[in-house]
Amino acid sequence: MNEIPEFNKIVIYGVGLIGGSFALALKASGAVGEVVGFGRRPENLADALDLGIIDRIGADCALELVDADLALVATPVAQMPAVFARIAPCLGPRTVITDGGSTKTDVVQAARAALGDRIGRFVPAHPIAGTENSGAAAARRDLYQGRKVIVTALPENTNASQARVKRAWALCGADLHELTPEQHDRVLAAVSHLPHLLAFALVRDLAERPDAPLFFDFAASGFRDFTRIAASHPEMWRDICLANRAALLAEIETYQQQLEEFRTALEQKNGLLLEERFSIARKARRDWGRRDSEKNSSQTGDGV
Amino acid sequence: MNEIPEFNKIVIYGVGLIGGSFALALKASGAVGEVVGFGRRPENLADALDLGIIDRIGADCALELVDADLALVATPVAQMPAVFARIAPCLGPRTVITDGGSTKTDVVQAARAALGDRIGRFVPAHPIAGTENSGAAAARRDLYQGRKVIVTALPENTNASQARVKRAWALCGADLHELTPEQHDRVLAAVSHLPHLLAFALVRDLAERPDAPLFFDFAASGFRDFTRIAASHPEMWRDICLANRAALLAEIETYQQQLEEFRTALEQKNGLLLEERFSIARKARRDWGRRDSEKNSSQTGDGV
Repeated sequence: MNEIPEFNKIVIYGVGLIGGSFALALKASGAVGEVVGFGRRPENLADALDLGIIDRIGADCALELVDADLALVATPVAQMPAVFARIAPCLGPRTVITDGGSTKTDVVQAARAALGDRIGRFVPAHPIAGTENSGAAAARRDLYQGRKVIVTALPENTNASQARVKRAWALCGADLHELTPEQHDRVLAAVSHLPHLLAFALVRDLAERPDAPLFFDFAASGFRDFTRIAASHPEMWRDICLANRAALLAEIETYQQQLEEFRTALEQKNGLLLEERFSIARKARRDWGRRDSEKNSSQTGDGV
Repeated sequence: MNEIPEFNKIVIYGVGLIGGSFALALKASGAVGEVVGFGRRPENLADALDLGIIDRIGADCALELVDADLALVATPVAQMPAVFARIAPCLGPRTVITDGGSTKTDVVQAARAALGDRIGRFVPAHPIAGTENSGAAAARRDLYQGRKVIVTALPENTNASQARVKRAWALCGADLHELTPEQHDRVLAAVSHLPHLLAFALVRDLAERPDAPLFFDFAASGFRDFTRIAASHPEMWRDICLANRAALLAEIETYQQQLEEFRTALEQKNGLLLEERFSIARKARRDWGRRDSEKNSSQTGDGV
């Protein structure tokens, strides 16, 4: 029996950082027979093949899915509706689907629309890992090692489907958590999507100034860390912002109120309010930092 | 002649991270005879003495300054007016003054008010280095190694005074630059003071939510880097914000417009605008990052 791999065949749609790292981790675990990749950019698929991330470039979706145990949809979220529509009619009898999308309610909605009464086959997931780099060449077998992967299971999911998807992510070394799609989107809007938007806004504003070099010349490491995520992939983040629009808009409005409060305090020279707010932030950040460094001491610092 | 140190005596007001590191670096250079420290907190001065950062704790300001070559004012900027008023009547015939304040126009104003026609003795400086830690215990002899120090010389400064102050910072290993006080405050408001305010605002908002733990649990390294500066010293940053109020308010308003533009684009599902802005930010951040890592490859990442 040991000669039969746990996952006979895995099909990956979008062999970039997320999909490629998933493939590399599962191959390294020895639990996968064959990995087939589909994607928009032939040169990227060629890279994935050269790098041994996939065993074959897929041509016929139906042909590849009919005997596949697992399909991972790891394209930018905006392309997922099209991918779900494409794979819906091709699912094999055993094929379970998961994804790596950074947003969940919109992905679930798209999956429901495409899969209909087979929505139970789709177990949504979001690995909280990534870097500002993208493409197959950025894939790493250890990307998910010790990283949180949030599974937002659906009422329609069978225990067997959930178990298979969780097993695959666990084989990647992931630390599994469960949230509802709505909880997921609300939390990620606050701790990831808004910070990206804020960092993009700051750097873009400086970059467009006539005397931009003067500002960048004196930017130091506080600026470097604060703006690191402003080097993230524009298309991916455009899609995430649009996909999580409602939750992100709510966070932006809350944040605008915070900022307006600071502005007013500054206008009124209200140092007491500023110091009190800064102190709350400092304590919370230090407490979190201690927990974070304990948990992540073994990790590289590039989750998003 | 070699037995006579270049700086017979240096007096430091505020022996914290900035003042303490200045003392350690100059002592290491062998160019300093004696370092005397003044400060508000006796326990911090005792630490500075134990750590060999200062040779003596000062008692009588006049007694210490009369034969001092150089005085460094390294207190929080809000305390500098009082310090300048205290040292003004005590300056020795050779005493030149510099500072480590993160803002300049307000410090120059306070110095002018206190020093009157001896303002030429004050050569303002801002070392762009620091960490979120503070106090004498955080001082490091290499804090200024390869770091930018912005000297905002005054029309009244003699060449000799400028030369002495620049020499002291150069002995700390600093990379010297010159700006006017106004240029300095405008640039720092944009690349340092605003980012700190933005990071404080984000963390404080999350910390005050009833379900704060849920948010912090799923914050990853994007959040970690973006909010590192939110662990900075609340009193110091309150003072910096108030001291650079005008320039910071201008930056906040510009930023609020940027954010409002993003909010509107999101409401209108204007993905084109978002992607275009994100792309400008990404390119600028990557270009800066390349230059920054070339320059700072030898440095620790904790300038502010």
